[in-house]
Amino acid sequence: MTVLSSADRVADNGEKKVKSSYFDLQSMEISVAFPQATPASKFPPCTSDYYHFDDLLTPEEQAVRKRVREFMEKEVAPIMTEYWEKAEFPFHIIPKFGALGVAGGSIKGYGCPGLSITANAIATAEISRVDASCGTFNLVHTSLGMLTIALCGSEAQKQKYLPDLAQMKTVTCWALTEPDNGSDGSALKTTATKVEGGWVLEGQKRWIGNSTFADLLVILARNTTTNQVNGFLVQKDAPGLTVTKIPNKIGLRIVQNGDILLQNVFVPDEERLPGVNSFQDTSKVLAVSRVMVAWQPIGISMGVYDMCHRYLKERKQFGAPLAAFQINQQTLVKMLGNVQAMFMMGWRLCKLYETGQMTPGQASLGKAWITSKARETASLGRELLGGNGVLGDYLVAKAFGDLEPIYTYEGTYDINTLVTGREVTGIASFKPPASRGRSRL
Amino acid sequence: MTVLSSADRVADNGEKKVKSSYFDLQSMEISVAFPQATPASKFPPCTSDYYHFDDLLTPEEQAVRKRVREFMEKEVAPIMTEYWEKAEFPFHIIPKFGALGVAGGSIKGYGCPGLSITANAIATAEISRVDASCGTFNLVHTSLGMLTIALCGSEAQKQKYLPDLAQMKTVTCWALTEPDNGSDGSALKTTATKVEGGWVLEGQKRWIGNSTFADLLVILARNTTTNQVNGFLVQKDAPGLTVTKIPNKIGLRIVQNGDILLQNVFVPDEERLPGVNSFQDTSKVLAVSRVMVAWQPIGISMGVYDMCHRYLKERKQFGAPLAAFQINQQTLVKMLGNVQAMFMMGWRLCKLYETGQMTPGQASLGKAWITSKARETASLGRELLGGNGVLGDYLVAKAFGDLEPIYTYEGTYDINTLVTGREVTGIASFKPPASRGRSRL
Amino acid sequence: MTVLSSADRVADNGEKKVKSSYFDLQSMEISVAFPQATPASKFPPCTSDYYHFDDLLTPEEQAVRKRVREFMEKEVAPIMTEYWEKAEFPFHIIPKFGALGVAGGSIKGYGCPGLSITANAIATAEISRVDASCGTFNLVHTSLGMLTIALCGSEAQKQKYLPDLAQMKTVTCWALTEPDNGSDGSALKTTATKVEGGWVLEGQKRWIGNSTFADLLVILARNTTTNQVNGFLVQKDAPGLTVTKIPNKIGLRIVQNGDILLQNVFVPDEERLPGVNSFQDTSKVLAVSRVMVAWQPIGISMGVYDMCHRYLKERKQFGAPLAAFQINQQTLVKMLGNVQAMFMMGWRLCKLYETGQMTPGQASLGKAWITSKARETASLGRELLGGNGVLGDYLVAKAFGDLEPIYTYEGTYDINTLVTGREVTGIASFKPPASRGRSRL
Amino acid sequence: MTVLSSADRVADNGEKKVKSSYFDLQSMEISVAFPQATPASKFPPCTSDYYHFDDLLTPEEQAVRKRVREFMEKEVAPIMTEYWEKAEFPFHIIPKFGALGVAGGSIKGYGCPGLSITANAIATAEISRVDASCGTFNLVHTSLGMLTIALCGSEAQKQKYLPDLAQMKTVTCWALTEPDNGSDGSALKTTATKVEGGWVLEGQKRWIGNSTFADLLVILARNTTTNQVNGFLVQKDAPGLTVTKIPNKIGLRIVQNGDILLQNVFVPDEERLPGVNSFQDTSKVLAVSRVMVAWQPIGISMGVYDMCHRYLKERKQFGAPLAAFQINQQTLVKMLGNVQAMFMMGWRLCKLYETGQMTPGQASLGKAWITSKARETASLGRELLGGNGVLGDYLVAKAFGDLEPIYTYEGTYDINTLVTGREVTGIASFKPPASRGRSRL
Repeated sequence: MTVLSSADRVADNGEKKVKSSYFDLQSMEISVAFPQATPASKFPPCTSDYYHFDDLLTPEEQAVRKRVREFMEKEVAPIMTEYWEKAEFPFHIIPKFGALGVAGGSIKGYGCPGLSITANAIATAEISRVDASCGTFNLVHTSLGMLTIALCGSEAQKQKYLPDLAQMKTVTCWALTEPDNGSDGSALKTTATKVEGGWVLEGQKRWIGNSTFADLLVILARNTTTNQVNGFLVQKDAPGLTVTKIPNKIGLRIVQNGDILLQNVFVPDEERLPGVNSFQDTSKVLAVSRVMVAWQPIGISMGVYDMCHRYLKERKQFGAPLAAFQINQQTLVKMLGNVQAMFMMGWRLCKLYETGQMTPGQASLGKAWITSKARETASLGRELLGGNGVLGDYLVAKAFGDLEPIYTYEGTYDINTLVTGREVTGIASFKPPASRGRSRL
Repeated sequence: MTVLSSADRVADNGEKKVKSSYFDLQSMEISVAFPQATPASKFPPCTSDYYHFDDLLTPEEQAVRKRVREFMEKEVAPIMTEYWEKAEFPFHIIPKFGALGVAGGSIKGYGCPGLSITANAIATAEISRVDASCGTFNLVHTSLGMLTIALCGSEAQKQKYLPDLAQMKTVTCWALTEPDNGSDGSALKTTATKVEGGWVLEGQKRWIGNSTFADLLVILARNTTTNQVNGFLVQKDAPGLTVTKIPNKIGLRIVQNGDILLQNVFVPDEERLPGVNSFQDTSKVLAVSRVMVAWQPIGISMGVYDMCHRYLKERKQFGAPLAAFQINQQTLVKMLGNVQAMFMMGWRLCKLYETGQMTPGQASLGKAWITSKARETASLGRELLGGNGVLGDYLVAKAFGDLEPIYTYEGTYDINTLVTGREVTGIASFKPPASRGRSRL
Repeated sequence: MTVLSSADRVADNGEKKVKSSYFDLQSMEISVAFPQATPASKFPPCTSDYYHFDDLLTPEEQAVRKRVREFMEKEVAPIMTEYWEKAEFPFHIIPKFGALGVAGGSIKGYGCPGLSITANAIATAEISRVDASCGTFNLVHTSLGMLTIALCGSEAQKQKYLPDLAQMKTVTCWALTEPDNGSDGSALKTTATKVEGGWVLEGQKRWIGNSTFADLLVILARNTTTNQVNGFLVQKDAPGLTVTKIPNKIGLRIVQNGDILLQNVFVPDEERLPGVNSFQDTSKVLAVSRVMVAWQPIGISMGVYDMCHRYLKERKQFGAPLAAFQINQQTLVKMLGNVQAMFMMGWRLCKLYETGQMTPGQASLGKAWITSKARETASLGRELLGGNGVLGDYLVAKAFGDLEPIYTYEGTYDINTLVTGREVTGIASFKPPASRGRSRL
Repeated sequence: MTVLSSADRVADNGEKKVKSSYFDLQSMEISVAFPQATPASKFPPCTSDYYHFDDLLTPEEQAVRKRVREFMEKEVAPIMTEYWEKAEFPFHIIPKFGALGVAGGSIKGYGCPGLSITANAIATAEISRVDASCGTFNLVHTSLGMLTIALCGSEAQKQKYLPDLAQMKTVTCWALTEPDNGSDGSALKTTATKVEGGWVLEGQKRWIGNSTFADLLVILARNTTTNQVNGFLVQKDAPGLTVTKIPNKIGLRIVQNGDILLQNVFVPDEERLPGVNSFQDTSKVLAVSRVMVAWQPIGISMGVYDMCHRYLKERKQFGAPLAAFQINQQTLVKMLGNVQAMFMMGWRLCKLYETGQMTPGQASLGKAWITSKARETASLGRELLGGNGVLGDYLVAKAFGDLEPIYTYEGTYDINTLVTGREVTGIASFKPPASRGRSRL
């Protein structure tokens, strides 16, 4: 074994100190330290499409799927463990990402690809199969930021911004959430005050994905005159705008979530989105984004299954591959069942959308149910990989972490179930219980 | 309140005894005892098709669905609580059941309806939505007994038996399981010995649905010459044949499962099924029946959801319908998500079958995964109904019990997952661990 | 095989009819039909005390345990499957039950055994280990009915009733729940109106255990003058009192729950319980009974584990006992872990009670948590027994059903968690959400 | 809002670039960015001891508990988020940690504290309540490394090493696991070859906690003469020894796990542990360490509950603290029940150990069951904290990650259940299924 040169080892000797060798020695490459199983940098083949979901796609959708899969396996898989660990974004992949033709998603015209919702969904899944952070990056850019411009922007705004955004020459983000308002997002407090020639924004946003480096920020704020929610386009270099990164995340570590401070930020009149005149006007955007969010856990679960499937056949204990043991087989099959069901739920949701039937409650149910099953699936996969299940190198640990913010964003699991609950019972139950006097119980 | 006449009450007075009033007094009608919520005898409307699954069906399939639903709600719902409690079969419904045009399922010709697999599946679900025992009755009759005759019988046998069976003028059953062999069914020990003009069957079968009253029994037995499994048609009045009912079940109580004794039972040559020459020959039958079994829990879960949906809106506590409470809404929505996913899984399985792609592992996964989710769904429904959740009158308690045998038959959950596990890993793990010497662990 | 005489079989021949043999033939004895595994009528040895819980008991408590266990295994195990199936109470065991010295539980004097709470709890568990219905029978009699007399009765009432009740010469019950009020029990509507020499009761009760045959009924009713809850002792033969049995239960089928009608029932002054002047006065009783109820699922789970442990070693498939398979071992061990934890939770609850520290929230947590784990345990045991898991003969099916009413009575799981939740957060959340106007979500 | 000076903001302006502001701007302090809820750097009070577990401890044990809790809350809580994120060990706390008097645990003499097993356990829990990585650091040092020296070392070895180790002047580790052997640890392949004056070690170890900076490494290796496992003490600066850090972990990120290369490492005769002559000789050590490992998830769950309890009362949405909502209360109470049960299981395990009754199966059950419930508890806590549940700053995200390696180390959940399963059934099932020929299923 000559993994480390003797020069490296010498470096460790010498002075007595508490801090030891690892400050001087580099960690071993995982493929050297553990040649017993292939890491995810060489991504496993897709074995999760057990019920031939692919047959339900059109040739165009299949082509998008293939193209995105190849890009992710080739460009992202080899670097994702490192960037996830560092919690940094791999900016160098943006040009190639832009060239894929998925940014802009279902938007037609203005240089956008005009994909079907199903194609957009399958792209989201294939991105997230390898790395969910990249999925979120594109989702925020495409299905929140760009889509708001496409649906609520003026013709001039669309022509000005969408073509560059579609190629990812510029990147956008979408700012709704505030420190005081998470689940109850519509209660936002950031203000927009009319002044001569434009508006002045004042307030704070939190958790905004892509915001630390976005060139263009879509900001939702409350019009101080009408008390309604309006939308504004803010340039990254606008005076009074500060964005700082939220650190210490356990999931989607590659996504850059920001704290945004808006201190007397001026926005010219032509950068106000004319189509956002109340919070309800964002609902068309959220309808699409919630469907897309539901496809992230589908993709993650595919990747987790694919990885486990390969790992169980490679890794041996007690003289046999792990795949030979009853408990492991049953766990793997439970995961496989979940993946098929998630697929079909997501697919049906797309079809409901495409036929104009989808209700908010259906979208919420899809997001909540699918995410819940994905979480179970990732947790089972985590178990199957044993010690290697806690290392980012084998994908599953990363996926396990990534599902947590997804479980919570775009409506937490609880909020989404109550949105559906309201729709099917006709009674809203978001608010706290009525009286808080002592019951006799 | 004049629910009981004073005459009734007088009957309770008089002699001092430990055994009391209820030996003399009839129980109150549930609709009188508890008018606060409608019992299942008046079946709740179908509110479980939230993702418009119905749109995926052909007009013919929709017509079958409607016809079966009406029959079940009208003819079976009012009597099922009573028969389930008594563990008896309502023989009087058989003629109407036969007239429905679903017995024989996908068999073409010989008076059979020649339904698509999807139509057969949806009929199974609609029957089971109201009463899973009726679903099992038809499944055993149609997708085991009749289908074996259709696929493995001679032309003469098909002409002789199928027309009457298709109208349920006669009923059949299918006997594989034995006391010694449940999960390992292929190891059956009942023997068929060639004698002049026919065969002599000797052995024991257990758990055989419909067998206590079936007119025609399909019996699988081991040919003592070839050591292979063969199939035989046995008449209910065959000398040496005895069938006794298995009592004390907690689920599918309306189904009559029998212990079959075959003591020197003679079967003429023309009643041997020429197409069953080994256990593998039953696989075509089991492929269909396993798909159909997977649709029972789908139907059960629909019914459970429908019932809970109505109940939560009717039943009040703390001054509001139960539907107004957060916990109840979340539970209901979890059930609703499961039902949509089960639907889609079952539908995809049908399509795989119909396109000739379905593998045993896919069928096993469908049965195992769906049943598992149905069990969770029924358990949640049980909770939602509180005390009324333990009464057969409100459907859910009955459904909760009915899922248990379904979880276990046609391959237990464990066996089905291992069948799929073998297919996806290439390694069988049914057998016990190799050596049982002390490990060093 | 000569299980059935030829005479029996002849009876089945003859006339052509749909209704068949089983109307004439008796079911086979389970030990004959399935000699492969011993049924619960011969109760399995106790192997569930893996963490030597017995060492935490005093010698007196151990003696109670031993005495109750022997009684249940000898007297009840052989008959319980039959009575459960018939949904009847085995009145003939009452004298022997009375002689056990556990009726009256922790009550001191008046012929009562004066057990410690722990001894009372362990007796409850040992009864329920074999048959939870017997556990409920005694619990209602001892820890609701008798305890209310002991804690809230006059000296004369105690002397008059407790000695006979302690020997089970007479049986009592306790009536709180009404059709309109389940979880919100304190809102009861039955009225007690003062008249000369006594009171007149008017109203309806539902679900009252033992009530169809109880000699003495403890009835809670609202004093029409004070609007407070009062308590009354009603004789079984009181004019105007009618009790009818609630049929169609899937659990605790041996328990006789009744619908009670009180139509102008006169109760003399001396039969009013002087210690019940408000609903709060019942809290001392409910504190004990909730602890005892928490020990029913402990006992049930012990029995289920014991049965599965024996069954897995007896039953063979694929050439080995079921105990040899990984999946089965893991399931069994999960059950065993649950049982140990339940034990310890219940034991700690007793100690908190015995040291005067127990709060309502602690009792509710114990009941809710333990019952939830018992339900999981029984469900796992159900799976382990395969087809025999749906037969009352093998205990687990019965236990599986019995847990459902226990999960729901004495506070449903939800209500109990909210009682604890109120205690630990300081905020009550029983009531429905405040406003039901449309949220902007 | 003057959180950032204008000077900071200016820094962000100027040149156009993809990489944006956050490369220049520091993240906001969490207490500034989100003042709505207190982060874990100010640790929440302990509200998880709902069943007064403290009363079961001796005064000495209570004193240890108090001392450790104060140390952890004061010294570790403020820095843990940062070190966890960086995946570095806070070496500067070691002296104060050493002064606590818990290193050495139950070892008597040689400067060790001679705690009871229960005191050692409670110390482990209190450390892990704040930071499980510190728990693992001490556990590896105390209950694996030091304990092996104490139980298997010579008198000279004990006198030479234990006093410094007890004060943490030096740190030790314990090396069993190898790349090829995880669950099947006893199959280790590292060799020890007798040479003049000592032994030569050759091989590879993986996952060894503390190993990158340990002063003294306990190495298990196979004696090439006897083929039995022996133990050796290796100095950190031994020629031929290289240790490199395993990066990219999602849990216990503060723990430094190493890849150890042993290339012709010479160990003098006096550094061989005379008491390790076979793998079985490590069982006394593992008996203690497995009990201690079981207390880590107990402590973690306490901390998670404590944090959630405070958070739900501080954080408001929809006009009320999160603690006011039904779903949140039920989730919190479920966690609280789990914590009580874990406590009691762990306590009983200690008592079984202290009375000399504890079997390997009991220890395995304790570790497996407790860890499983802790995982559920942390997952529920993660949900309760919403977005803040994915940030290390609020403890729960960190705890959620930390449980994953704990679930897997010292015997994975699966292996531990099979160890118990072997003990209670008498049949080992670790090995793969016997024959892998096609079954007829």
